Amino acid sequence: MKELGEAILKWGKGLGNDIVKVDMFLNHRIDTGLMFRMGEEIAAHFADERPMTVLTVEASGIALALTAAHALGDLPVVFAKKSGTVVQDDETAQAKVYSFTHKTESTIRVEKRYLPIHSRVLIVDDFLADGQAALGMIEICRQLDCPVCGVAVGIEKGFQPGGRMLREKGIHVLSLAVVEKIENGTIRLRDD
Amino acid sequence: MKELGEAILKWGKGLGNDIVKVDMFLNHRIDTGLMFRMGEEIAAHFADERPMTVLTVEASGIALALTAAHALGDLPVVFAKKSGTVVQDDETAQAKVYSFTHKTESTIRVEKRYLPIHSRVLIVDDFLADGQAALGMIEICRQLDCPVCGVAVGIEKGFQPGGRMLREKGIHVLSLAVVEKIENGTIRLRDD
Repeated sequence: MKELGEAILKWGKGLGNDIVKVDMFLNHRIDTGLMFRMGEEIAAHFADERPMTVLTVEASGIALALTAAHALGDLPVVFAKKSGTVVQDDETAQAKVYSFTHKTESTIRVEKRYLPIHSRVLIVDDFLADGQAALGMIEICRQLDCPVCGVAVGIEKGFQPGGRMLREKGIHVLSLAVVEKIENGTIRLRDD
Repeated sequence: MKELGEAILKWGKGLGNDIVKVDMFLNHRIDTGLMFRMGEEIAAHFADERPMTVLTVEASGIALALTAAHALGDLPVVFAKKSGTVVQDDETAQAKVYSFTHKTESTIRVEKRYLPIHSRVLIVDDFLADGQAALGMIEICRQLDCPVCGVAVGIEKGFQPGGRMLREKGIHVLSLAVVEKIENGTIRLRDD
């Protein structure tokens, strides 16, 4: 998505080898107009798959999930909640998510009633890096017998394995922009 | 707001004396259409104050902040981030927030560059209870010389002191629905 790529090059900062800091328009300050156009792009791509619910994970996935859901005809959004540990609970579907960045394991959970069986789910998140959050959401959908239409993200870190791993599993992945690498603080995007 | 009041009575649950559980449409599953209409209601109420930025706090305030900002002409949204402790940092405005519910103190912070001096700020959140989160955001605006147009919330707990406290300070508060009390698990709304 050209406008997103331009925003990344204009406002984004590369830190070290792997951090893409886009606080200026995506996950601390939100450029509202851009966020809505990103949602429309996701909706145009996935409309034919007829998703019924958009699933994301708190906190920074919520804005993009909401604009995508709006553009798909005001679908409901469910956001998985994060917590430290798995708690035994019959009303909740849970999955462990390992963060390679923070070297920590957390749990994401969704109350089962909010993803009724056989709901067609579109997973949306702001970033795709190692793909562990997406895998956790896919696992929750599997537990609840909800088919996954695909995974749509704002920014994929192309130098991390998540995108390839999901595609090799046959998941339909849409990344609105792909960061190819970070060189001396400069962000390089993958050409479309 | 009639539609929100009806959703609270239909889907909400009162737990104990003070918990209003609205996970079904507001803060775990989001009713997207309702969330947009809530944003429009906030925008209609505050448009004359000409806010320039919408400020909220992660995570569950983000959706309502985004729809209000959209209805106000795609204003930027800034969401304060939560962390455990104050960290000395010249680039960040911070405020302590005490949670009466959890008996814990946390810190919310905003990078100063995202709220430029003299920005007119509309504060938006999903809930208003003790008003401590709103006070923290007002304190951050004060540090950054940003005038506060008002505080708009989805649901005010009328039996907790936050709404009165803010109004007594002269803050313009809009609550789209006010829960008067919880009786034996039943939620009673304040008549408009």
